[in-house]
Amino acid sequence: MPAPLEDLTILDLTHVLAGPYCSMILSGLGAMVIKVERPGEGDDTRAFPPFKDGQSAYFATINHGKKSIALDLKAAADREIFERLLARADVLLENYRPGVMQRLGYGWEDLHARFPRLIYGAVSGFGHTGPDALQPAYDMVVQARGGVMSVTGEKNREPVRVGASIGDIVAGMFLGHGILAALLDVRKTGQGRFIDVAMLDSQLALLEHAIAITSVTGEAPQPSGARHPSITPFETFHAADGLFVIAAGNDTLFARLCNALQLPLAAAPRFATNPARCENARLLKRLIEAVTLDHPKDHWIALLAEAGIPAGPIQTVDQVLRDPQILARNMVVDVLGEDGRPESLAAGNPIKMSGLADPQTRRPAPRLDGNREEILAWLEDVETQSASRPPGRR
Amino acid sequence: MPAPLEDLTILDLTHVLAGPYCSMILSGLGAMVIKVERPGEGDDTRAFPPFKDGQSAYFATINHGKKSIALDLKAAADREIFERLLARADVLLENYRPGVMQRLGYGWEDLHARFPRLIYGAVSGFGHTGPDALQPAYDMVVQARGGVMSVTGEKNREPVRVGASIGDIVAGMFLGHGILAALLDVRKTGQGRFIDVAMLDSQLALLEHAIAITSVTGEAPQPSGARHPSITPFETFHAADGLFVIAAGNDTLFARLCNALQLPLAAAPRFATNPARCENARLLKRLIEAVTLDHPKDHWIALLAEAGIPAGPIQTVDQVLRDPQILARNMVVDVLGEDGRPESLAAGNPIKMSGLADPQTRRPAPRLDGNREEILAWLEDVETQSASRPPGRR
Repeated sequence: MPAPLEDLTILDLTHVLAGPYCSMILSGLGAMVIKVERPGEGDDTRAFPPFKDGQSAYFATINHGKKSIALDLKAAADREIFERLLARADVLLENYRPGVMQRLGYGWEDLHARFPRLIYGAVSGFGHTGPDALQPAYDMVVQARGGVMSVTGEKNREPVRVGASIGDIVAGMFLGHGILAALLDVRKTGQGRFIDVAMLDSQLALLEHAIAITSVTGEAPQPSGARHPSITPFETFHAADGLFVIAAGNDTLFARLCNALQLPLAAAPRFATNPARCENARLLKRLIEAVTLDHPKDHWIALLAEAGIPAGPIQTVDQVLRDPQILARNMVVDVLGEDGRPESLAAGNPIKMSGLADPQTRRPAPRLDGNREEILAWLEDVETQSASRPPGRR
Repeated sequence: MPAPLEDLTILDLTHVLAGPYCSMILSGLGAMVIKVERPGEGDDTRAFPPFKDGQSAYFATINHGKKSIALDLKAAADREIFERLLARADVLLENYRPGVMQRLGYGWEDLHARFPRLIYGAVSGFGHTGPDALQPAYDMVVQARGGVMSVTGEKNREPVRVGASIGDIVAGMFLGHGILAALLDVRKTGQGRFIDVAMLDSQLALLEHAIAITSVTGEAPQPSGARHPSITPFETFHAADGLFVIAAGNDTLFARLCNALQLPLAAAPRFATNPARCENARLLKRLIEAVTLDHPKDHWIALLAEAGIPAGPIQTVDQVLRDPQILARNMVVDVLGEDGRPESLAAGNPIKMSGLADPQTRRPAPRLDGNREEILAWLEDVETQSASRPPGRR
């Protein structure tokens, strides 16, 4: 059974993270991704640490299995190749600042006139409209401006960033939805679409709860520290050997928790309902810890698992990479080097799908311009075939 | 121009956040979402604060524009309705623990045999395979176990959770990709697919950088506080009236920053390259703050914007909801109440697409079972039409 996106060709001008993350997901679903890089340096992340055998493991994590061709979009010969690729691609991705593609003659209107079925996906810091459209942005700028930092961290201390680059990643994921929806649509209408995703907009879309609270109460939520702002108990607790998490999201789970910990609290008015527990959260935390401090984390996590109460460890990334459930799900894969041997680790594909292979290795990330000959041969191949055949994978 | 998913029907058994977030995105792209809720209480989040006019604004934020029917999947009459809906739906979403749907007679194998084109999307805490498949999970459990908490917060302090529910949301977004890819595929093959997304797996997929570092150095990254772990300067800085963010991601931007702040540091060996800047980050922060402390945040943000250097405010959610760029992008929308008047705010659609309307309001969230008559009438309507016509929207 072929992968669901097996016959798709993505022409990818993006670099760093948001766009390449989007094309990584599509590649994981079977699409062929042709990375068009600027000659000389290529994607900025080729120079990002850490390095393994002289190659950026960071770059490899995001770009495994893609093909690379270096093209100077201001040089006539390279523009000709680029336009031949456009004629065969289903999707173009770019993350330039608004206006750059137009100046190259490759703005959405130009391309849509010439390649009506082509889908054009753009991801940028602030989007292609609005007063700040031309301002540059990085992950941290949108995490800060978009509100996520304001609800992350401890009260009365300086705000912290989310340790994962969700400013980029979530934008790449909204772009992915737009691309796939437009691909469904073009099969009916024959018309491609322009998709404009902003990193800042995407941050706002993460704030469902915080927006509801602000909108109804008029007050913005505070940083939530290590607990959920409106569910109790739903936070970290001390065991004999450190912290772990309990998330008892409703009254039934709370009653079970009290039972498991032999704490006769479930019927007490101070703790009988979630609003009451929220009001007495500090007291409840201490009563629970008076029990949990007696034994190590693993004891409590096993006991609560047995009782069906959501709980678990707080794991560092090296621990995550050894987690039996993570390994059973094939969520840690080897990225191969050019010699075919495992070079570094990457996250597996979280989209498990019937009929979609879930290999334990990933093809190498491409060297800059490393697939030029192969791509040009493929172009000649498809060009000599019937022009009426839709663009396809070799 | 119709919305790209205008002709899709999603039958949605999910509740709380991961699944409903997925169907919210698909609804925003034009799909009809029929929420199948348990009679009596319906989706848990109907009882989540904050409330406006007796309705949960939290529920409304995620479920606006969906239709609701209450069905008891153990009762014969309701099962008949459910199966008539299955025969007309393109996609079924569920977030039960593995095994629950099988016991109802609605497991993937059963449904695939009866409705071969149906796409079956499941989202759960730990996925349908592996030793912990049957364990319950909430957002915080997977944030903790999946490693994101370990890289978020301040060094030498207790870990904090991400203030947004990325444990749920990101899983819902991977499910969305899987659904849309399977929809593209079913048009070619006639065969639906089973998609199994785990919240824990999805957390791992956010850790691109952290996995690369752990894999190459053997050491897990520390919590990153308010700075990027391997780019400098890329963090918060004090101005006269509080903190703001500067993200100078490469040497060119750093040189521009030095110029803008009139700090002659760009050529100094201690700061000339990103590795050198990372090593001397604490010193560099103080040298920059010795300048930025002199004027308020707005002064510096405007000055750096002028110079093309990524920078910006750290905004609370009420500030975000008034941000001119956010408003220009129509990223704050009114969810209407049943009386047609604005009731609460929600995030707009971050997927801006040509030919896709981007209204400033959202239809009300449904009352529990509020669309039963309408849904039954629609069913009769499509059933009396040619059986060969694909399932469609009214």
